[in-house]
Amino acid sequence: MTKAPIRTVCKVDLDRPAEEQPYLHNRWHPDIPVAGTIKDGETVKIECMDWTGGQIKNDDCADDVRFVDLTKVHYLSGPFEIEGAQPGDLLLVEIVDVQPLEERPWGFTGIFDRRNGGGFLDEIYPSAAKAIWDFEGIYCTSRHIPGVKFAGLIHPGILGCAPSAEVLERWNKREGELIAQNKLDRDVAMPPEPMSVHAGSADARLKDRIGREGARTIPGRPEHGGNCDIKNLSRGSKVYLPVHVPGAKFSVGDLHFSQGDGEISFCGAIEMAGVITVNFRVVKNGVANLGLKSPIYIPGPVEPQFGPGRYIYFEGFSVDEEGKQHYMDVTVAYRQTTLRAIEYLRRFGYSDYQSYLLLSCAPVQGHVAGIVDIPNACTTLGLPMDIFDFDISPAAAEAAGVRRRDMGRCAFETGKTEGDVRNVAGRYAETSFGGGLTYLKK
Amino acid sequence: MTKAPIRTVCKVDLDRPAEEQPYLHNRWHPDIPVAGTIKDGETVKIECMDWTGGQIKNDDCADDVRFVDLTKVHYLSGPFEIEGAQPGDLLLVEIVDVQPLEERPWGFTGIFDRRNGGGFLDEIYPSAAKAIWDFEGIYCTSRHIPGVKFAGLIHPGILGCAPSAEVLERWNKREGELIAQNKLDRDVAMPPEPMSVHAGSADARLKDRIGREGARTIPGRPEHGGNCDIKNLSRGSKVYLPVHVPGAKFSVGDLHFSQGDGEISFCGAIEMAGVITVNFRVVKNGVANLGLKSPIYIPGPVEPQFGPGRYIYFEGFSVDEEGKQHYMDVTVAYRQTTLRAIEYLRRFGYSDYQSYLLLSCAPVQGHVAGIVDIPNACTTLGLPMDIFDFDISPAAAEAAGVRRRDMGRCAFETGKTEGDVRNVAGRYAETSFGGGLTYLKK
Amino acid sequence: MTKAPIRTVCKVDLDRPAEEQPYLHNRWHPDIPVAGTIKDGETVKIECMDWTGGQIKNDDCADDVRFVDLTKVHYLSGPFEIEGAQPGDLLLVEIVDVQPLEERPWGFTGIFDRRNGGGFLDEIYPSAAKAIWDFEGIYCTSRHIPGVKFAGLIHPGILGCAPSAEVLERWNKREGELIAQNKLDRDVAMPPEPMSVHAGSADARLKDRIGREGARTIPGRPEHGGNCDIKNLSRGSKVYLPVHVPGAKFSVGDLHFSQGDGEISFCGAIEMAGVITVNFRVVKNGVANLGLKSPIYIPGPVEPQFGPGRYIYFEGFSVDEEGKQHYMDVTVAYRQTTLRAIEYLRRFGYSDYQSYLLLSCAPVQGHVAGIVDIPNACTTLGLPMDIFDFDISPAAAEAAGVRRRDMGRCAFETGKTEGDVRNVAGRYAETSFGGGLTYLKK
Amino acid sequence: MTKAPIRTVCKVDLDRPAEEQPYLHNRWHPDIPVAGTIKDGETVKIECMDWTGGQIKNDDCADDVRFVDLTKVHYLSGPFEIEGAQPGDLLLVEIVDVQPLEERPWGFTGIFDRRNGGGFLDEIYPSAAKAIWDFEGIYCTSRHIPGVKFAGLIHPGILGCAPSAEVLERWNKREGELIAQNKLDRDVAMPPEPMSVHAGSADARLKDRIGREGARTIPGRPEHGGNCDIKNLSRGSKVYLPVHVPGAKFSVGDLHFSQGDGEISFCGAIEMAGVITVNFRVVKNGVANLGLKSPIYIPGPVEPQFGPGRYIYFEGFSVDEEGKQHYMDVTVAYRQTTLRAIEYLRRFGYSDYQSYLLLSCAPVQGHVAGIVDIPNACTTLGLPMDIFDFDISPAAAEAAGVRRRDMGRCAFETGKTEGDVRNVAGRYAETSFGGGLTYLKK
Repeated sequence: MTKAPIRTVCKVDLDRPAEEQPYLHNRWHPDIPVAGTIKDGETVKIECMDWTGGQIKNDDCADDVRFVDLTKVHYLSGPFEIEGAQPGDLLLVEIVDVQPLEERPWGFTGIFDRRNGGGFLDEIYPSAAKAIWDFEGIYCTSRHIPGVKFAGLIHPGILGCAPSAEVLERWNKREGELIAQNKLDRDVAMPPEPMSVHAGSADARLKDRIGREGARTIPGRPEHGGNCDIKNLSRGSKVYLPVHVPGAKFSVGDLHFSQGDGEISFCGAIEMAGVITVNFRVVKNGVANLGLKSPIYIPGPVEPQFGPGRYIYFEGFSVDEEGKQHYMDVTVAYRQTTLRAIEYLRRFGYSDYQSYLLLSCAPVQGHVAGIVDIPNACTTLGLPMDIFDFDISPAAAEAAGVRRRDMGRCAFETGKTEGDVRNVAGRYAETSFGGGLTYLKK
Repeated sequence: MTKAPIRTVCKVDLDRPAEEQPYLHNRWHPDIPVAGTIKDGETVKIECMDWTGGQIKNDDCADDVRFVDLTKVHYLSGPFEIEGAQPGDLLLVEIVDVQPLEERPWGFTGIFDRRNGGGFLDEIYPSAAKAIWDFEGIYCTSRHIPGVKFAGLIHPGILGCAPSAEVLERWNKREGELIAQNKLDRDVAMPPEPMSVHAGSADARLKDRIGREGARTIPGRPEHGGNCDIKNLSRGSKVYLPVHVPGAKFSVGDLHFSQGDGEISFCGAIEMAGVITVNFRVVKNGVANLGLKSPIYIPGPVEPQFGPGRYIYFEGFSVDEEGKQHYMDVTVAYRQTTLRAIEYLRRFGYSDYQSYLLLSCAPVQGHVAGIVDIPNACTTLGLPMDIFDFDISPAAAEAAGVRRRDMGRCAFETGKTEGDVRNVAGRYAETSFGGGLTYLKK
Repeated sequence: MTKAPIRTVCKVDLDRPAEEQPYLHNRWHPDIPVAGTIKDGETVKIECMDWTGGQIKNDDCADDVRFVDLTKVHYLSGPFEIEGAQPGDLLLVEIVDVQPLEERPWGFTGIFDRRNGGGFLDEIYPSAAKAIWDFEGIYCTSRHIPGVKFAGLIHPGILGCAPSAEVLERWNKREGELIAQNKLDRDVAMPPEPMSVHAGSADARLKDRIGREGARTIPGRPEHGGNCDIKNLSRGSKVYLPVHVPGAKFSVGDLHFSQGDGEISFCGAIEMAGVITVNFRVVKNGVANLGLKSPIYIPGPVEPQFGPGRYIYFEGFSVDEEGKQHYMDVTVAYRQTTLRAIEYLRRFGYSDYQSYLLLSCAPVQGHVAGIVDIPNACTTLGLPMDIFDFDISPAAAEAAGVRRRDMGRCAFETGKTEGDVRNVAGRYAETSFGGGLTYLKK
Repeated sequence: MTKAPIRTVCKVDLDRPAEEQPYLHNRWHPDIPVAGTIKDGETVKIECMDWTGGQIKNDDCADDVRFVDLTKVHYLSGPFEIEGAQPGDLLLVEIVDVQPLEERPWGFTGIFDRRNGGGFLDEIYPSAAKAIWDFEGIYCTSRHIPGVKFAGLIHPGILGCAPSAEVLERWNKREGELIAQNKLDRDVAMPPEPMSVHAGSADARLKDRIGREGARTIPGRPEHGGNCDIKNLSRGSKVYLPVHVPGAKFSVGDLHFSQGDGEISFCGAIEMAGVITVNFRVVKNGVANLGLKSPIYIPGPVEPQFGPGRYIYFEGFSVDEEGKQHYMDVTVAYRQTTLRAIEYLRRFGYSDYQSYLLLSCAPVQGHVAGIVDIPNACTTLGLPMDIFDFDISPAAAEAAGVRRRDMGRCAFETGKTEGDVRNVAGRYAETSFGGGLTYLKK
């Protein structure tokens, strides 16, 4: 018996504002109207906007990134009702494909300005920057970061089922407490925000309530996954998602052509509009039967494979760039590890901003290596050598001397000179480890 | 021309206290006497004690772990002078083999008591426990954790060159500041400690000075690596180590038959006495030429390979087990991730302590997944299914129902009943996420 | 500067006979009119018919396979002129993607009747049979072979540049000699054949000449590659093809969603209509500079990966199923190896015809293991366990006893009963090795 | 309970002739006296001589290879009685380790003279040659083939259970028939040979009978495996061997540090003396239950991994070097494929003999690609680029021009000049494909 063709349950319109499209939404809330119904066992295609809803252009200027409207992001496709799903079940989602939209064969990686979004290294690299990536089949390249080409480990940044009212209340409570206690000079979490709320086909009254109650989509959260930004939750993966409301109300979006562990520049994956093909299966009583408090997944068999010996691994520890010792802080250690990789890539002509973009989106491996040897956490970052079209191995660098290449530049804000952005890196270079040793200054 | 046999530059005596063996030491200090001289380009074998210097026995009681003398650990082999190495050079160390000592075909993984060493999850699992692992060729098995067998990703936990006086002073200063500011109810770093110092063949006066000044070996440190506990710095790896003193003064020890990312139970690798075969090459001016502030390495080609689709990945976020929201804290997120794996393994009959031991030493992949989506850091832990001799996949569990097996027990302190140790886990299970949802309680 | 979209240089019409479409041809000849011109450095999309030109239907009857018209096959897309290519150059073809046509999300694997095409095991399995495969993203499944699902190692079966008149003459001569000397009871090669010749847009006179002179497309040939049917010449691969005529005249077709080493049932890959995206670059004087007499290629990084320990390997030797000893004959050894795998799969309920189809199209590894130990060549075949949705490992089979499942049946010719086709296998089972041992008969 | 140490059931004496050591034998026969008894479930260590019994020396002259006594080879360790094994059972042998003998850290690869042994390419490369390999941990290097270094995929060339009288008779009959019908100008099989027979501790009378009846050890055979020379039957593998006599009478030998698919130069692996650690388990009635006519195996998880994109694949077809077309002959195709790789390596300064040796022992992948497209079988050979310490990729060769290096020479017979051996290759180069094209001659 011939198999029926795969149904597309959501189409997006790249030429229309995301906030006008009824199958999209940008909050987590149990009452967002259902965008469609899918059978238990069915495979469907779901189109998605890029996470900025189309704010970023394919050009050589990063003004769009500098002034991106961060209240108008994370437009998710859905929510979809999965027939038969009940709270306490698991929704088994098999991601059988993710592709860019055929009419949009490009994506972007951005560094947000520290005053508008920021990122993992924004104290050191505060300026907005951008790289456009062109897709050709499994590969991508960028005119803004020459010398690299790699196969996408393509995946959705966000997928999850809607929270129940109880779960939503818990989120708002615990994140509200964090905000209330915040003494840092930056946002630490994002409370419900009525501005720019998009609740699909909700009427004005419901939309208003969702604006006041709905959880923001930025963080992943343990109860449902959400924006977990996991690079190998890619094609072929099976993910088990806890169900909190009848019908599950599944949403998905924020597709990535590729991403490195940590997605460090925040808009750090190769963000794209695309289509995801997924199969759904309801696992009755799965939460209790499998004992799950957070999603689990099994990756597919088609990750790009470089061979273990084709990575350069950088080490980092929880001593920050001012030389201060932190106690077992993996976040600090991973920041140092990324800085070590950026410094290494300078040798080949890349600017720090190019490397920051590259480490965000290329398939780098970020590992928690040692987490018990007080006071230093140790992390490692594996950079695949085979994404470069020249030899970046230490052996080659050492043998031949390093020849700095002309690597051009990534896109910056209007009026920003290369000097402006290089100076910051320069200062950082001089001061790291609070002085440095004589033989480090050569 | 026939090649000369490989020279063994250090032999250890398993029947003699480590502190009496002149080629061992347990502090980092520039003035520890040289234990031998190695040519630039030479390959040598170096024997090493296990990191406790032989305190742990092959038996079924964890009293040795409970009362381990933590001032008498980390006996390193060396330091070795590498001819021609000068400050500012890099020492390229190729690890061509690591093997257990033939007469000692077993190792151990320990959970330290919270009052004596502790570990990553010691608030939840405060008791001492132990698993003995038997080695058969590339594989290990444990009578204390039945149902698993895996190939070792064998590696040294510690290797590095001696600090210069300047580097040592910096270490003592920054770690001293952390200790001075400590408000936690636990040690946050370990200052120089004269007790049980072992400085190789140093005379009493020098030994005394090294006791007062020498850096402890517990933490890895950015300037030289040291106790970085990196699981894939294994056979075939090439590691580039900064040189800080004339002759480099290279030391190595703390060999691991296997380890998981994070080595979470502290004594968490499969600790063993063994022999490491290494080749040394001096890279002149390498620190400046390669721009290195911390070691880098390239793994070898022989890591055990399971295929991407043979891992179960657990997700964790920076919300702790009391339900408290932390800001971008990868350490908290990784703790949650490990707890999710422990909970999953309960279904198959493993006690939490067995799983805690297993996740410490089996080749689990711990990744920094998302580190920019405020307020939640997200980490993942990949558990290879093929180390179990039964099917632990969610599909199998779901299809067949989970059959709890009799998994015996790991070794505990004398007088500790199974109830004692299970109760803790029980309490934790009830209270996690500060209450939990109705359908989580089933 | 924004990149131009990728040009489609050839579209096929699935509803129109292949022989009427001017961009297709089914002979190798230097004078087939050019179907389009491509720049050196350009990336293009090329659509292709399935190799039978649409003769096989998505149904449950193999009459179409039984009576397939083998003079009307191998419709290739092209030939394309690559600007600047000259004899003695190499054409570097990078395969950046291969996909099924969106409107045709299925393919087929066929066993040809011994009287019409045959296959590697046609003496044992003489009947026509068929399996239809449905595509969902990276995966395929078949209602005719239940219990398996795998990711495609997608690739073109045929690609190459046109022969020169000199090369063509050589082919016709050497293959003609083989035909002239043939004493076997079967075709050993296929001479030029005027019937059903399709020469693209050639006029009647040229077409007539091409019919008389043109080389058949069935065999791969050393000088240009052609129908080499290499499973890992897949997405991301770079292949270097010798150029024999000005403009190279590149053609491609016979796309496969997946194939096993050997493609043993002849129509053994999962045959499909699809689109291939390729980049072309001319390597001047490459034939001499690289010393190439046949194509070489470098695979891409995205092969499905199962882990070495997830294969069952079968061994076979050059002793045939009648017990006759052959001298170092790898062909005989590989036939035995495939038979061993078929026998093994019987235990799980698969009919021999289902397994014959499956081994042809699933990503099985066929190795030349030992080729020097007279008189026995030894080959191995690695069958990935993870393509099955139940455990086929010998350990599981042994532990649980093998439970024969109801595996349904593949499609057969009208009127063929299960008994008809099973009987053959049955006879073979009794007689293999010319008698067998007592304990083999249990 | 502490585990007992692993028992060594066979020690070899490198300083004593193999034929004098009672635990060795060099024929397959059911009546060779048992060399020891092993329990069902036991793990033991078994030492083995190299397959020539020590005839080859670590020097720079190949006279030992030229005049090797081929009646005095394949000394196997055993046979061992496995308690409880009966005809019809399977013996599950898990290879948990293979290591060189510590006192013999080197091995050799040889090309036999065409008049004394020969090899796969002996018509083209008729002279004896040799390369000595030095072992350092997981790696090997050779002074006779500079520029390469690789990790061993270490394995036994030969393992199997003794034939029953019935099986032995079958072997002698079918191989005898081949010999009787032989019209080739070379040996096609080796009949029982009384000269130099070694039957362990057999008395003179039994030894005499074994000499007359015993099967030679050169070929692998379907009924028991034997000399199958399978490169990934390596550490961690589980192999299921049919049992033909009570007690199984298991023998093993011919250890290889590494081997390429085909082991083309006959003495083509890196041959070594060593020790294998194996676990035995009897699978009752396994032959019938699993339906096995030949051994099967599951490889271990620790093969050296290079990443799919780190191989250069060469293609070959069944057209021989004289330009003659063969019908579906995989043996001819694989010969061509190996020649293509040898030609490619010339560009980098390697002599054909060096490459012939290298392709025999390095972990090259030899695949049966297409076996149904009459008249041409197609095979591929994947050469890992990462075993070379310089870049051999076509991209690098093309970009930089190929710089011929001084690669020295492998060891030849006394009096053989470089010219002597190069001339042969030279003639072959001129004449291949029976003339060649103009642009191939540049």
